[in-house]
Amino acid sequence: MSENTKWVYGFGGGSAEGDASMKNLLGGKGANLAEMASLGLPVPPGFTITTDVCSEFYANDRKYPEGLKAQVSEALSKVGKTVGMDFGDKSKPLLVSVRSGARASMPGMMDTVLNLGLTDETVDGLAKLSGDARFAYDSYRRFIQMYSDVVLELDHHAFEELLETYKEGRDYFLDTEMTADDWVKVIAGYKKIVEEQLGRPFPQDPEEQLWGAIDAVFGSWRNDRANTYRRLHHIPESWGTAVNVQAMVFGNMGETSATGVAFTRDPSTGDNHYYGEFLINAQGEDVVAGIRTPQTLTKRAREAQGEDEPSMEEAMPDAYGELVKVFEKLENHYRDMQDIEFTIQDKKLWMLQTRNGKRTAKAALKIAVDMCKEGLIKENEAVCRVDPHSLDQLLHPSLDPDAPRDQVLTGLPASPGAASGEVVFNSDEAERLAQEGKAVILVRVETSPEDIHGMHAAKGIVTARGGMTSHAAVVARGMGRPCVCGAGDLKIDKSETFFTVAGRKVQKGDTVTIDGAEGRVYAGAVPTVQPELSGDFAELMTWADKARRMRVRANAETPHDAQVARDFGAEGIGLCRTEHMFFEADRIIAVREMILAESKKGREEALAKILPMQRSDFEKLFRVMTGLPVTIRLLDPPLHEFLPHSDEEIEEVAKSSSMDAQLLKDRAHKLKEFNPMLGHRGCRLGVSYPEIYEMQVRAIMEAACAIKKETGEDVTPEIMVPLVAKREELALLKVRIDEIALSVLKENNLKLDYLIGTMIELPRAALTADFIAEEAEFFSFGTNDLTQTTFGLSRDDSASFLPDYMRQGVFERDPFVTLDREGVGALVKIAVEKGRKTRPDIKLGICGEHGGDPDSIRFVEDAGLDYVSCSPYRTPIARLAAAQSKLQQS
Amino acid sequence: MSENTKWVYGFGGGSAEGDASMKNLLGGKGANLAEMASLGLPVPPGFTITTDVCSEFYANDRKYPEGLKAQVSEALSKVGKTVGMDFGDKSKPLLVSVRSGARASMPGMMDTVLNLGLTDETVDGLAKLSGDARFAYDSYRRFIQMYSDVVLELDHHAFEELLETYKEGRDYFLDTEMTADDWVKVIAGYKKIVEEQLGRPFPQDPEEQLWGAIDAVFGSWRNDRANTYRRLHHIPESWGTAVNVQAMVFGNMGETSATGVAFTRDPSTGDNHYYGEFLINAQGEDVVAGIRTPQTLTKRAREAQGEDEPSMEEAMPDAYGELVKVFEKLENHYRDMQDIEFTIQDKKLWMLQTRNGKRTAKAALKIAVDMCKEGLIKENEAVCRVDPHSLDQLLHPSLDPDAPRDQVLTGLPASPGAASGEVVFNSDEAERLAQEGKAVILVRVETSPEDIHGMHAAKGIVTARGGMTSHAAVVARGMGRPCVCGAGDLKIDKSETFFTVAGRKVQKGDTVTIDGAEGRVYAGAVPTVQPELSGDFAELMTWADKARRMRVRANAETPHDAQVARDFGAEGIGLCRTEHMFFEADRIIAVREMILAESKKGREEALAKILPMQRSDFEKLFRVMTGLPVTIRLLDPPLHEFLPHSDEEIEEVAKSSSMDAQLLKDRAHKLKEFNPMLGHRGCRLGVSYPEIYEMQVRAIMEAACAIKKETGEDVTPEIMVPLVAKREELALLKVRIDEIALSVLKENNLKLDYLIGTMIELPRAALTADFIAEEAEFFSFGTNDLTQTTFGLSRDDSASFLPDYMRQGVFERDPFVTLDREGVGALVKIAVEKGRKTRPDIKLGICGEHGGDPDSIRFVEDAGLDYVSCSPYRTPIARLAAAQSKLQQS
Repeated sequence: MSENTKWVYGFGGGSAEGDASMKNLLGGKGANLAEMASLGLPVPPGFTITTDVCSEFYANDRKYPEGLKAQVSEALSKVGKTVGMDFGDKSKPLLVSVRSGARASMPGMMDTVLNLGLTDETVDGLAKLSGDARFAYDSYRRFIQMYSDVVLELDHHAFEELLETYKEGRDYFLDTEMTADDWVKVIAGYKKIVEEQLGRPFPQDPEEQLWGAIDAVFGSWRNDRANTYRRLHHIPESWGTAVNVQAMVFGNMGETSATGVAFTRDPSTGDNHYYGEFLINAQGEDVVAGIRTPQTLTKRAREAQGEDEPSMEEAMPDAYGELVKVFEKLENHYRDMQDIEFTIQDKKLWMLQTRNGKRTAKAALKIAVDMCKEGLIKENEAVCRVDPHSLDQLLHPSLDPDAPRDQVLTGLPASPGAASGEVVFNSDEAERLAQEGKAVILVRVETSPEDIHGMHAAKGIVTARGGMTSHAAVVARGMGRPCVCGAGDLKIDKSETFFTVAGRKVQKGDTVTIDGAEGRVYAGAVPTVQPELSGDFAELMTWADKARRMRVRANAETPHDAQVARDFGAEGIGLCRTEHMFFEADRIIAVREMILAESKKGREEALAKILPMQRSDFEKLFRVMTGLPVTIRLLDPPLHEFLPHSDEEIEEVAKSSSMDAQLLKDRAHKLKEFNPMLGHRGCRLGVSYPEIYEMQVRAIMEAACAIKKETGEDVTPEIMVPLVAKREELALLKVRIDEIALSVLKENNLKLDYLIGTMIELPRAALTADFIAEEAEFFSFGTNDLTQTTFGLSRDDSASFLPDYMRQGVFERDPFVTLDREGVGALVKIAVEKGRKTRPDIKLGICGEHGGDPDSIRFVEDAGLDYVSCSPYRTPIARLAAAQSKLQQS
Repeated sequence: MSENTKWVYGFGGGSAEGDASMKNLLGGKGANLAEMASLGLPVPPGFTITTDVCSEFYANDRKYPEGLKAQVSEALSKVGKTVGMDFGDKSKPLLVSVRSGARASMPGMMDTVLNLGLTDETVDGLAKLSGDARFAYDSYRRFIQMYSDVVLELDHHAFEELLETYKEGRDYFLDTEMTADDWVKVIAGYKKIVEEQLGRPFPQDPEEQLWGAIDAVFGSWRNDRANTYRRLHHIPESWGTAVNVQAMVFGNMGETSATGVAFTRDPSTGDNHYYGEFLINAQGEDVVAGIRTPQTLTKRAREAQGEDEPSMEEAMPDAYGELVKVFEKLENHYRDMQDIEFTIQDKKLWMLQTRNGKRTAKAALKIAVDMCKEGLIKENEAVCRVDPHSLDQLLHPSLDPDAPRDQVLTGLPASPGAASGEVVFNSDEAERLAQEGKAVILVRVETSPEDIHGMHAAKGIVTARGGMTSHAAVVARGMGRPCVCGAGDLKIDKSETFFTVAGRKVQKGDTVTIDGAEGRVYAGAVPTVQPELSGDFAELMTWADKARRMRVRANAETPHDAQVARDFGAEGIGLCRTEHMFFEADRIIAVREMILAESKKGREEALAKILPMQRSDFEKLFRVMTGLPVTIRLLDPPLHEFLPHSDEEIEEVAKSSSMDAQLLKDRAHKLKEFNPMLGHRGCRLGVSYPEIYEMQVRAIMEAACAIKKETGEDVTPEIMVPLVAKREELALLKVRIDEIALSVLKENNLKLDYLIGTMIELPRAALTADFIAEEAEFFSFGTNDLTQTTFGLSRDDSASFLPDYMRQGVFERDPFVTLDREGVGALVKIAVEKGRKTRPDIKLGICGEHGGDPDSIRFVEDAGLDYVSCSPYRTPIARLAAAQSKLQQS
């Protein structure tokens, strides 16, 4: 760095010395301000002190580099000239804001000081200029308070206390009751506090104020909180922070001043109309505070809303005309709908901020499709403009936004959609009532695999316990049922005839409405609005399908789910969990007989009863999916999941199925496991009890043959062996699977392609994928279990500490929601590379919950997998995310 | 392959065409026979048909290559000449054995046909030659039976049935009652069976017999069992098998013939004397069968044993002289003690087999040290001659082999050593009686962490449930207590006053003796023999210590264990598990108070009571380990492990510690986890309850300071954070650990080195070791948990299917005993590489159970770790294994 080094970059007045690309030198905030100014937008002028100054400051024992003071002084006077004010001037005082601005925003840093430059002298100038003494003194006392807190680091309680005491003494309740005189008195008190605590008066030299604030920003780069944050988030100390100094502008300088917010299109509907509000002679916060009613921006909007007060278009036609020009410039530059804050100071328009505007899913769709048609963006850009997560809002019914509602309970928004129904407390009853044609909402403390039929029968599910990835949440999302989880205030009475929430009682049979997207439960039936899947939606999805490389499949077990998936554009089934079929009422008895059998022969007899039912399940599924591949996972859960657990349940089951209760109890006890997740499950069952998998393979192949004969079309069963850790497991099982598959084809005198493959859901499988690929024709990454084993983290138990982890920044995201690239992702990449090395044409997919998460889909695209598989209702989300991932691939 | 290809390699007559290096071409057996022959040993001559023939055979539609028949014929006639017999000759018939011999032995292959060449004609020649018609006909009927079974693949039941019926008809009970005439009749019956089943007579042409056997060997290369085995074990089809044809020799051809077995040194004591037995006019199996009493080999042995029958040295001095020359040649060639089978046929010595002799641990030690002193081998070779596993026998007391014993129970040999004591059924009582000076044996259904004090107090442990890696087994090995686990027949009465085994009752207070090396329990006190750790043992260990690169530490918590480890040569503590300290009676109450506390403040109050106790624990440990590093793992298990579980236990604990039972119950219920192994444990506790780790760090550092002041010597505490999955976890905790450590040093005005590091026990930690090494100064591989998570396999639950896995060859070894190189090992290597990349001087060790397993230690040496840590009693095993690993590193 020489003494000619440029330490300060100015902006404003239609140009800037920096631009958006100089983020490392100017920080994020400084670079954006420079970009706006260089577009010729009327940005309040200012300058950025570079991050290099911060580095020099620390490299030289907290001394500033030579030349800095001069450059700041020069930049400041240029700012004054641009706005026609002067820093420290008694009649036209330039006021500035001072803000930190690192490359990445970071807690612990000194954030903002506003209105810097106010002193006992300049405050009078401001009062006169604005014609509003109350505003001037209020600004001054705010400045003293803020400066004392963040720059002088004085105890802020004293200031608050003084103000409270003052207001009490006058019976004031709100700050707005304070007059200019009141503020003058408070200011005197504030200054006394400062002097007492500091040992010297509040600085009355604007120059001193400014350098105090700059010192504070640079000093805060190395405070404890910032240091800890950097350490946790891997941000190098050497990056440094920049400091932004910018002229304050005021919308409350009389009737020729105003302030407002605007969107270049309607953020709610996406319609191509300007949209916004403004207030004459007001500050930005007045618009938000709601004390005065803002006026409309356009005449059109005023008329549509039947308002009397003139719109900005009518009241300030010149400024409005300038604003419209800015709108056009911004949409053309950013090629997206903008959300703008502006101020008019004495007829002059100032742009305080512009950013891509937040919008509803519906608006996002419409804006993207419209802009494409307008020629502003291309199809592929339109595809990238819609947040795939937001589609969830469109794919499910939602509550009518205009309908009144009476909230009973809140919980986690576990599965989106809205539904009304009678409250029931157990799954059998839910099923019975549903069969009678009633809509029911299943309310449980928590759910288990034995509730599957009840959850399926219900229109929605509410649980008292469990997080976003609890059994209820995962299954409900898979089924597309709205679900509210972890509603901690929900107390279900032991009698199961009512529940209470903070004393309010809801009876069994009462109608409630649940909103799974918001995590709320309402009393009575709240009307819902059905989703529209045609129009813009259909058009955008066509563009997305053209753009994507990966196939999208769905995880589905029932013909209904398979049909939903197919309707939503799924190109096959990526995961059919056969155990769900085992739980259905007509077969659970045979399943239990099998588990209780002492010998292979006994098991085979029970399995013979299950075979025709499984075959019929597969036939129904294949019939929906003709022409497409269907991946079927052989039995996975440990056998104890199919047995009753508590003594009462055992007695009940024994009675109802005429089994010996003691035998059931003994067997359940013997099968009990310390860590079922790591227990006797998956292919370990297939090795111990080959007859179970043999029955399933027979059922699959017989069903495939039957459907081929019936429809003339092929299905391609992909038989998937779960939880493989060693090549040898798959080698052993594959011999038997092939034998049975070939013999079924021979019996039917048919040819049919089928594949044998495996889940990659254990670290060892990923690490030895080259060996496993010798046997496996496909890999499906089971990233739920792979995440559990890679982290050594049980999904069911993580609720007790994940919140601590998120709060302290150890986890930025829940790894069960968004795939962990560094760890789990590393294993996926190892497996892909090793698998393809052995078998170049191996088929690769992912079937964990992550398959429906857009961020994870991006990883999957990067890893080069062939397809993702997700729950049926997320199929469009996955299609869109896959397209974006391909288009935005780095 | 040209027509000049050599398909057949001969051996015998003092030379051979092949040698030990030609295993791929000749198979394992063929190469070894060639090696022996080329040493000039009198091996019965023969030849090997190469594995290339097998490949050609299958490449050409099961046709043999040209030239093979001629080469076999030539080789066969050469064999005949060497032994003075001729194949198919009526008076001096050459008989041969035909054996398969692949590179690696493999089930499913045709194994052996003996006495091939016997026909209705040649059998008479054999009868005359041997002067023993019974022998000749017995040999012939055995040949027919064996050939029909393995070559002709006829049903062998018919042969067995015929013989049984024949014997019943004559009231014979044993085969030895059959006369030559009887066998002639049976042979007639056998031949009839063959003709009926085969449709043609039993082959009477020796040439046809020979090619039939050769065909059968090559054919068996592709039978189903061999195919499945190859598939499972990754053996390429293309390897093929060889066929070995070798002349039969007979030790029962009269008084100038004999057969015997010999060792070149005493395999029991290691003394340098020839050792063996022989029988005149006998076949090999007669020596084993025990019908005749064999005679001694040497005069010295005969005199020592007070035998009358002459020794071989006296009875057959010429043959003995030849044998002694062979002994010398063999020891000089193989440079190891040999185990030999020999036959003398008509005064001529034939060597049937030589191999390195099996020996006791004591003999192995003595032979290795002696041979080194004799100049036969070097020190480093001596180090490699002793199986480290076998040291276990020497390091623990063992049962006096001469003492009578009355066996009560058998189970798994879970922890070696022998001990006697009174039976007790619970840990508190065990402790109480031990304090009264009584020796006790703790008998439990299974053990849990709450039994630690009882296990420590007991002389030995017996459990009814649990495998070789159950809690009882692991802890007992760690403590050096003998232990018998998984004794399934053990039924402990509910009253806990007695146990029964198959009706036999043993009362509380009865004395029993357990032999942990054999897995047996005896009634009464069986005398034991103490180990000797000086002499040969000490000498060999000195050599081993010179040779090894890796350091050896021990896993120890108590001062006693630490002392044992130091006495056994441990160079530090690699794992001190602090939770064991939490279980001790005087602190478990405070621990439970901490867990029940609702607030951080409540926890801190309880922890303040624990602090002085923990500090005192560490002081005692450090006092033993001055000058050495001590790795201390901060609290690891989930908190529920410290709470009582069943309702009765809760009531009991509540009563005895005046806690609220309902509160205890609620807390225990709330803390319960589905998969505790993957739950709220390890550093997750440190993140949720920082005060626990803070107390522990303070206790460690205060203790280190106290011991430094007391002894003037340093200890180097290595503070280890368990279960880290992400760098951020360690980063967060390290800040706090450093703060406390530095403040304790400041309070004590002392300087002391300490390290902060982590266990690598989760796949994610290994995969992101480069990031974690930014924070960690050392890694200790916790391969127990790393194996569990890499395989997705709970050690506690694996007993239900691991036997199936071992039986079917899916696992060759229990991965909890021997480290899985392909999977877990791959993660270790990744972590080593990434860790060193970030921090080249990072300290690397292993502290899982694998640290004491010689095969795993070999891997650890290959992976380049700095040390292994094992249970105190395995320290010498680890020292020896580390030396061998270094010396034999590939």
